[in-house]
Amino acid sequence: VKPPSSTSELSPGGLFDGVLARGRVREASGDAAWLGAMLDVEAALARAAARAGLIASEDAEAIARACRPEAFDIATLGQEAAASGNPVVPLVRALAAAVGGRAADQVHRGATSQDVLDTAAMLVTKRALTPLLEDLAAAAEAAADLAAAHRGTLMAARTLLQQALPTTFGLKAAGWMIGLDEAAIGLRSVGRSRLAVQLGGAAGTLASLGPDGLAVVGHLADELGLLAPVAPWHTDRTRIAAIAGALGVAAGALGKPALDVVLLAQTEVAEVREGLPGRGGSSTLPHKRNPIAAVSTLACARRAPGLVATLMGTMVQEHERAVGAWHAEWRPLTDLLVTVGSAAAWLRDCLGHLEVDASRMRTNLDLTGGLLMAERVATTLAPVLGRLAAHDLVEAASAEAVATGRRLADVLDDRPEVRAHLDAAAVALLLDPAEYLGSAAAFVERALREREMRQRQEQA
Amino acid sequence: VKPPSSTSELSPGGLFDGVLARGRVREASGDAAWLGAMLDVEAALARAAARAGLIASEDAEAIARACRPEAFDIATLGQEAAASGNPVVPLVRALAAAVGGRAADQVHRGATSQDVLDTAAMLVTKRALTPLLEDLAAAAEAAADLAAAHRGTLMAARTLLQQALPTTFGLKAAGWMIGLDEAAIGLRSVGRSRLAVQLGGAAGTLASLGPDGLAVVGHLADELGLLAPVAPWHTDRTRIAAIAGALGVAAGALGKPALDVVLLAQTEVAEVREGLPGRGGSSTLPHKRNPIAAVSTLACARRAPGLVATLMGTMVQEHERAVGAWHAEWRPLTDLLVTVGSAAAWLRDCLGHLEVDASRMRTNLDLTGGLLMAERVATTLAPVLGRLAAHDLVEAASAEAVATGRRLADVLDDRPEVRAHLDAAAVALLLDPAEYLGSAAAFVERALREREMRQRQEQA
Amino acid sequence: VKPPSSTSELSPGGLFDGVLARGRVREASGDAAWLGAMLDVEAALARAAARAGLIASEDAEAIARACRPEAFDIATLGQEAAASGNPVVPLVRALAAAVGGRAADQVHRGATSQDVLDTAAMLVTKRALTPLLEDLAAAAEAAADLAAAHRGTLMAARTLLQQALPTTFGLKAAGWMIGLDEAAIGLRSVGRSRLAVQLGGAAGTLASLGPDGLAVVGHLADELGLLAPVAPWHTDRTRIAAIAGALGVAAGALGKPALDVVLLAQTEVAEVREGLPGRGGSSTLPHKRNPIAAVSTLACARRAPGLVATLMGTMVQEHERAVGAWHAEWRPLTDLLVTVGSAAAWLRDCLGHLEVDASRMRTNLDLTGGLLMAERVATTLAPVLGRLAAHDLVEAASAEAVATGRRLADVLDDRPEVRAHLDAAAVALLLDPAEYLGSAAAFVERALREREMRQRQEQA
Amino acid sequence: VKPPSSTSELSPGGLFDGVLARGRVREASGDAAWLGAMLDVEAALARAAARAGLIASEDAEAIARACRPEAFDIATLGQEAAASGNPVVPLVRALAAAVGGRAADQVHRGATSQDVLDTAAMLVTKRALTPLLEDLAAAAEAAADLAAAHRGTLMAARTLLQQALPTTFGLKAAGWMIGLDEAAIGLRSVGRSRLAVQLGGAAGTLASLGPDGLAVVGHLADELGLLAPVAPWHTDRTRIAAIAGALGVAAGALGKPALDVVLLAQTEVAEVREGLPGRGGSSTLPHKRNPIAAVSTLACARRAPGLVATLMGTMVQEHERAVGAWHAEWRPLTDLLVTVGSAAAWLRDCLGHLEVDASRMRTNLDLTGGLLMAERVATTLAPVLGRLAAHDLVEAASAEAVATGRRLADVLDDRPEVRAHLDAAAVALLLDPAEYLGSAAAFVERALREREMRQRQEQA
Repeated sequence: VKPPSSTSELSPGGLFDGVLARGRVREASGDAAWLGAMLDVEAALARAAARAGLIASEDAEAIARACRPEAFDIATLGQEAAASGNPVVPLVRALAAAVGGRAADQVHRGATSQDVLDTAAMLVTKRALTPLLEDLAAAAEAAADLAAAHRGTLMAARTLLQQALPTTFGLKAAGWMIGLDEAAIGLRSVGRSRLAVQLGGAAGTLASLGPDGLAVVGHLADELGLLAPVAPWHTDRTRIAAIAGALGVAAGALGKPALDVVLLAQTEVAEVREGLPGRGGSSTLPHKRNPIAAVSTLACARRAPGLVATLMGTMVQEHERAVGAWHAEWRPLTDLLVTVGSAAAWLRDCLGHLEVDASRMRTNLDLTGGLLMAERVATTLAPVLGRLAAHDLVEAASAEAVATGRRLADVLDDRPEVRAHLDAAAVALLLDPAEYLGSAAAFVERALREREMRQRQEQA
Repeated sequence: VKPPSSTSELSPGGLFDGVLARGRVREASGDAAWLGAMLDVEAALARAAARAGLIASEDAEAIARACRPEAFDIATLGQEAAASGNPVVPLVRALAAAVGGRAADQVHRGATSQDVLDTAAMLVTKRALTPLLEDLAAAAEAAADLAAAHRGTLMAARTLLQQALPTTFGLKAAGWMIGLDEAAIGLRSVGRSRLAVQLGGAAGTLASLGPDGLAVVGHLADELGLLAPVAPWHTDRTRIAAIAGALGVAAGALGKPALDVVLLAQTEVAEVREGLPGRGGSSTLPHKRNPIAAVSTLACARRAPGLVATLMGTMVQEHERAVGAWHAEWRPLTDLLVTVGSAAAWLRDCLGHLEVDASRMRTNLDLTGGLLMAERVATTLAPVLGRLAAHDLVEAASAEAVATGRRLADVLDDRPEVRAHLDAAAVALLLDPAEYLGSAAAFVERALREREMRQRQEQA
Repeated sequence: VKPPSSTSELSPGGLFDGVLARGRVREASGDAAWLGAMLDVEAALARAAARAGLIASEDAEAIARACRPEAFDIATLGQEAAASGNPVVPLVRALAAAVGGRAADQVHRGATSQDVLDTAAMLVTKRALTPLLEDLAAAAEAAADLAAAHRGTLMAARTLLQQALPTTFGLKAAGWMIGLDEAAIGLRSVGRSRLAVQLGGAAGTLASLGPDGLAVVGHLADELGLLAPVAPWHTDRTRIAAIAGALGVAAGALGKPALDVVLLAQTEVAEVREGLPGRGGSSTLPHKRNPIAAVSTLACARRAPGLVATLMGTMVQEHERAVGAWHAEWRPLTDLLVTVGSAAAWLRDCLGHLEVDASRMRTNLDLTGGLLMAERVATTLAPVLGRLAAHDLVEAASAEAVATGRRLADVLDDRPEVRAHLDAAAVALLLDPAEYLGSAAAFVERALREREMRQRQEQA
Repeated sequence: VKPPSSTSELSPGGLFDGVLARGRVREASGDAAWLGAMLDVEAALARAAARAGLIASEDAEAIARACRPEAFDIATLGQEAAASGNPVVPLVRALAAAVGGRAADQVHRGATSQDVLDTAAMLVTKRALTPLLEDLAAAAEAAADLAAAHRGTLMAARTLLQQALPTTFGLKAAGWMIGLDEAAIGLRSVGRSRLAVQLGGAAGTLASLGPDGLAVVGHLADELGLLAPVAPWHTDRTRIAAIAGALGVAAGALGKPALDVVLLAQTEVAEVREGLPGRGGSSTLPHKRNPIAAVSTLACARRAPGLVATLMGTMVQEHERAVGAWHAEWRPLTDLLVTVGSAAAWLRDCLGHLEVDASRMRTNLDLTGGLLMAERVATTLAPVLGRLAAHDLVEAASAEAVATGRRLADVLDDRPEVRAHLDAAAVALLLDPAEYLGSAAAFVERALREREMRQRQEQA
C-alpha cells in the first residue's frame, strides 16, 4: 500500500480525538486523506488513459504533477460541493485550472464523480486498514503473550458475573487472542478480495471511452494497487457493506477483552490493572487509577454497530446512481474506520501494558470456600449415588456452607453419604481448583500452536 | 437561548460538509461550539458558586473573564484528553493557568468532568436546535404554502408506486406539513422539558460543596437557561435518548417529502423540479438538472437511525460513571444534530423553491385512460349488482381496456350490465377524477386551520 | 382501554418466550391480539358507517357479530396474505363470507388494507402499553421503596467501575426511579397524543365515502377510543416512530438498574441478590444463584435499539403507500412492544424482590482503607495549602498508602504539613464516609417528593 | 447438511408470515427447528461421549432414541425456561426423564446450557442457509438469464432518478447478478469456515470430562458435520457476528434489484412488470397489478440492518458467560435468517417471472429528444473546440431544446460552430443511443463468463 500522497503533517485534531480518533488511523482516513486519495485517483486515471493511448503521456504527467493535495483547499471544495452534490465537481474544475493548457482538457477523462469518490473510498480503506491491522495484530500478540505466560495462572471463571469454576487467566487471554485473530482474518480477506477501482462513467458503460474502456479500468487498477472489478459497481454496494461487516466484527472482538479488563480491574476484584504511564488519573479523585485504555476501547467499539447498520441500510440504491444513499455512506465509512482503528490502538495499549495480579486471582478464587468445586464433588459421587441424588446432596451441602459460613469441605466431611465413599483427603483433592482445570491448558496450547502455524503460512 | 460564547467565525468545514453538514447547525454543534459551551459552563459554575456564597464574586468574575474560547487550542485539548479520558481535565488545567492567582483554585469548584461535558452537551443541543427548528419550521411553512396553493391541483395518488386514484397535490403537501410539524412539536417538547444542567461532583452527591450543593445546582441552571434536575443524571441517560428519539422522528419526517420530490422529479414523471439557482448541474451530463436539495435531504436523513440506535444502546451505563458508554455518546449526539439540522436546511431549500407542473400532473393522471376511476364505477354498481359482482365486472373491463388499449369508458359502455344502469354521460361523470376527490379538500382545510390555531396559541 | 376481543386463553408460547416474551405483553401484542384488533377495527368501521348513515344499523351489527377472532384461522390468513401483500385482504374476504347476505357487501366499507392494519397497530400498541406501563410503574415503585428505605445506607459510588466516593444506596435507587418514571412519562405522553385511527381509503382521500368521510373518521375514533387524525397518515409515520422512540428510551431506563444489579450481585461485591423464589438455579453449578431477572431484563432491553432504528429508517415512505417500508414495520413494532414490556416485567420482579446487604456495602466501602475520602482531605487542605499543593500532597499520601498497605489516616498523620493543620481526630472525621455524603439525602428527598406530587396530580 | 430431526409438518405460521417469513426458511429456523437442533446436539453429544469411552454405547443410543422432537412441548419448555434463563435446563430434565434408567444420568454429559444452544444455533444456521442459498442462487440465475437475453436491449440509465445516458437492460441485470453472487460467496464462506460446535462445560474448560475433553469436542463436530473450534467460544462471538454480517450484505444485495423493479414497474415507466400468477391484486383497486414480490423483498430486506446491529452490539460479553447479551442473540439471529431467506425467496419469484417491455424501454429512452446523448456531442467537439467550450455549447443547446421543445439534433444543426465540424448525418449518428453504449456489452460478457467459470470450479 502506498502512503497517502498528502505530505501534510498530522492534521489538527478535534476536541474528542484523543479518546475517539487515534492519530494514525485518523491521519489515514480524515479529510486530508480523502483529498489525497481523490487526487491519486485523478493522477492514476490520467496515466491509465495514456497507457491505453487515449491521451498523451505528457498530458498525463502534467495532470499527475498537478495532483498535489497542498494546492487545494478542503474547506473551499467542501462548500462548493453543495452546488453539485459532491466535492469531485469542484475538485476537477480546480485541478483543470491548475493543470492549464491542452492537458487541462484531459483531466477526469471518461469518469463520473462517483468513480473518483468510490475509488478514493477504496484507497482510504486500504490505507486505514494498515495501521488498524497492525494495532489489531499487536493487541492479539499481547493477548498471546498473556496466554502463554499465564497458562497456569488459576482464576475464577465467571458466568453471569458469578464465580463458577476455576479456569486459568491463560485460557481467558487465549479467548481474546482467538477473537482478535478471527477479526483480523476477516478484515484481511475483505482487504484482499473486495477493494476494487470504480470506473464506469456517467452511466456505468464507459461510453465516452469508446472501445478502450476495459483497458483503462485495468490500467487504473494496476496504477493504484486495487482490483479491477468485473463491471462498475456504482449501485452494487456489496463491497462497502462487506468492509463494514468485517469492521463490525472487529469492533466486537476488540470490545470483549476491554470489558473483561474493566471488570477485572474493579476495586473489589483487582486482578489486573492498566500500566500505561501517565494515563488514567482522575480530575477529582487523586488516588484513582482508571483503566482508561480499556474504557476508551469500549467507547470506540460501541459506535460501530450503528454505523454498520447505516452502511448496510444504504445498500439498496436506485438504478445507476442513488438518490442519497450513496452520499450517506461517506461519513459512516470514515467514522467506522476511525472508530475501529482507534479501538485497536487503545486495546494494543491496554493489553500491551496489562499488569496481572496472579495472587489476587488465587485469593478471589478461594473467596467462596470451595463452593466453586461443588460440581466436581457432584460429578464424582454421581456414579455411586446417581446423578440427581449426588446433585441434590451437594446442593444441600453448598446451601449449608453458605448459610453457616463454614467451608464446603467441612460440611461434606460431616455427611455420612460422602464419608461412605470419600475420606477427608479425597474431598480436599476434589476441592483443589488446580486439579479441576480440564482441558484449559490443552486449549491454550492448541490455540497458540494454530496461531503460530497460521503466521508461518502467511509469511511463506 | 444565548449565542455560543465563541466569537470565532465559521470554522473551516470538511470535504463533505457542503452536502452533509450545513453551515448554521454545524457552527452550532462543531468542536468550537463544544469548547465554547464547556467554557460557558465553567463561567456559570463560578458565578453560581459565588451566588451560593462559596467563592468570592471577584474570583467568579476572574474565572468568567478567562473563559474565552480563542484562548484555548482545540487540537491540544483533544490530544491531552487521551491521558484522562476526556477533554475537561486539560481544559480545567489550562483555564486555571489562565485565571492565575487565588481565583485559579476556584476553577471547576465541586464539579467532575462529566458535569461540564454533560451540561455543555445540553447547551450545544439547545443552540443547535435553534437553526434546526427554524429550518424545520420554514420547510413546514413551504409545505403549507404548497398545500394551500394546490388544494385543487389534481394528480395521481400512487400506492406501491402504481397510480391508484386521483388526489390533489395540496393533500400530498399537507401530509408533508403535518409530519414536519409533528416532528417540530416533539423536538420543542424535548427542548422545553429535558435540557437540564448536570452537577453532581465525583460521585453524584456534590459532597465537596457541603450543604450548598442544591443551591449551586439551581444557580447554575439559572445562569445557563437550562432546567435544574431533581438529582444528578450521570448514568440516567433518558435525557440524551429522548433528544435522540425526537431527532430520529424529525429525520424521517424530513426524508419523506424529499423522497416524494425525487420521485415526482423523475424524467418520466416530471411533475416537480427544484428551482434553486446554481444547484444541480452534473459533471458529465450538461443537460441534467438534478434534485440536489432533495437528494441531500435524503442523504442526511439516512444517517439518523443508526445514530439514534447508538445513543439508545449507550443508555445502559454502569453505576455512577460508565466504562465507555458515556464517551460513546459525544460524537453520535453531535452527528445527529448536524445531520438532522442539515436535512432541515436542505428540505427548506427544496420545498421553498419547488416548481410544480400542474398540467403535467393532470396529463399523468390521464395516462391510464380512466382505469384509476374503476373503483368508483365498482362502488356505484355495487348496490345494484352486489359488491363482488360489481368488482368482478369492473376488473374484467379494466383488464380488457389494458389488453386492447381502449379507454375504460368505451369498454364499459359496451357492457349491457353497465348500460342497464348507467348511460354514457353517467359513466363519463363517474370517470372524471375531479369528481372523485372525497375529503381531500376538507383534509387540507382542516390541517391548515389546525396549524394556524396552533401557531396562534404558541404566539399567545 | 378495552380488552382485546380475543377470548382465547394465553396463546402457546415459543421456545424462548419464558425469557424474552413475558406473558401479559406477549398476549397483548401477539398474532392473536393483532387479529382481534383487526376485527375490532372492522366492527367499529361498520358501526361508524352506520352512525354516519352510510349503511344500515342492522348490517353494522351483523358485521360486528361476525368479528369473532375464534372464527378465523391465523395461519391460513397469514399464508393467503402472500398473494396480496397483507393479511387484511383474505380477512375481509373471510369476514364477508362469515357475515353473508346483504350486510356482507358493507364489510370494510371505504377502507383500504392499510387503514385496518394501521388502526389495529394503534390498538395493539394501546393494549400492550397497559401491562407495560403497569410493570414499569411497579418497577419504579420498587425503586422508590428502596430509595426511601436506604436513604441512609452507605455504599461506595463507583466511576469507571472503580470505587470513587461514598454515596447511599438510596441515591442509587432514586436514580433508577427517576429514569423509570421519565420513561413512563414519555410513553404515556405518546399514548395520549399519538394513537389515532387510520382511515383514508385507497388513496387517502376517502373518495368512496363521498362527503361523509370525515364523519366516519370521527365515529371510528370514538368507537375505538383512539384519536381522530387531522388527515390520513398512510405515509406520515411520525406516530409509529414516536412510539418507537419512547419505547427505546424505556428500554434503556430499564436496562440501567438491571446492569447495576448484576454488578452489585457479583461474587466479589455481593451487595445485593435477587430473591425470587425458584429462579436462578444453574444447570451445572449447584451452589450458584444467578440474577436471572436482571440478566433477562438486560437481554430484553438490548434488542430495542436495533428495532427502533428499523422503525425510524422505515419512516421515509413513497407517495401514498410505501414499497416495503410499511410492511417492514409490522414485526419490529410488535417485537419492540414485547421486548420492552418483557424487560419491564423482569425488572419489576428483580427490584421487587431485591435483597440488599447493607453491611456488605459498608465493608466494601472500607476496602480501600480511607482512600475514597482522599478528595475530602484535599479539599479541606486546599484553602491553607493551595489547591494544587493540597492535591499533590494527598495524591502522594494515597500512593504511599497503596504501596505500603497502610491506612490513609496513618500516612496522613505522619505528614507534618497535615499535622500543622489537622490533628488525628480531625483527620478521622474527614475520613468518615458518613460525614461526606453532600446532598445525597436531599436529592433522594426531593426526588421522592416530586414523584409523590406527580402521582397526586395524575390521580386528580 | 442433514435435515432437521423434526418430523413435524410445516408448523402453523403467523399472521404476517405469508409476506415476511417464507415457508422453507421459516421451517428451517423456527422454534420447532431449534428444538430439533437442540435434541440433535444432545444425541450427538451422547454418541461423542461414547466414542471417547466416557459412557456406554447403549446409553448413548438410549439417549439418541429419546431425542424425538415430537415428545417435547415447545410452549412448556419455553415457559419453564423462565426459571433458569434458558430452555436447555428444562429440556435436559425432560430428556433425562424420557430416557430413564441408568442412561438418564449420562444425558447432557459435560455440557453447559450454552453449549447446547450455541451448537443448535450453528445447526439452525446451517440448515436455514440451505434454502436461503438455493433461493439466492436461483435469483442470481434469473438475473443472469435476463443479462444474457437483454444484453442488447437499450434503455435509459438513470442517475439520481434522472435519465442520464443509454445503457442496456442486460447490464443492469448483470449488476444485480454480480451483487447476488457476491453475497452468496460471502455466505458460503461463512458457512464453510465459521460454523463450529460449542463445547466447554460450565466454565469453558470441560473440567468434568477430565482428560477426554478435546476428543469429545472432535467427535461432536464429526457427528454434527460442524467444525471443531480451537477452544470454546462462549464469549467470543465473532462467529455469530460474521454470520450476521454476511446476511446483512445479502439483504442489501437482494433489496437492490427489488428497488429497481418497483421503479421500473411504475405506471409512468412501465418497463417491467411482475408476472406471478395470482399475485398482486389490490383490495380496492380492481385494475392494479402490484409488484408484490419486489415489494415483499424490500420489506424483508429492510429489517436486516437493525438486526445485524443488534448482533454486533451483543458481541461484547462478560467473562465466561454474558449477563444478557447472549440471550439477546437468539431471536435476532433467527429473525435475520428468516428475513433474509424470505427476501431471497421473494426475489427469486420476482426475477424468475419478470416481464420485460423492451419497446417501452426504447420509447422512454427517446422521451428527452436526444438530450441524453448531449455528452457524446460535447465529447466529440471537445478536441476541436476545447472541452469547456464544447461543454458550454452543448449545455446551451440542451437548454434551448428543453425550453423550446425542439429535438436536440435540430437545435445543434442550427449552430454554426457545430455545422463547421459536423453535418446533419454525423449529428444524427452521434445522437443514436445504440451507438453510444461503450463497454456495456463487454461488461455483461465478462460478468457472465466469470460466473460460468466460478460455477465450473465449484462443481469441480
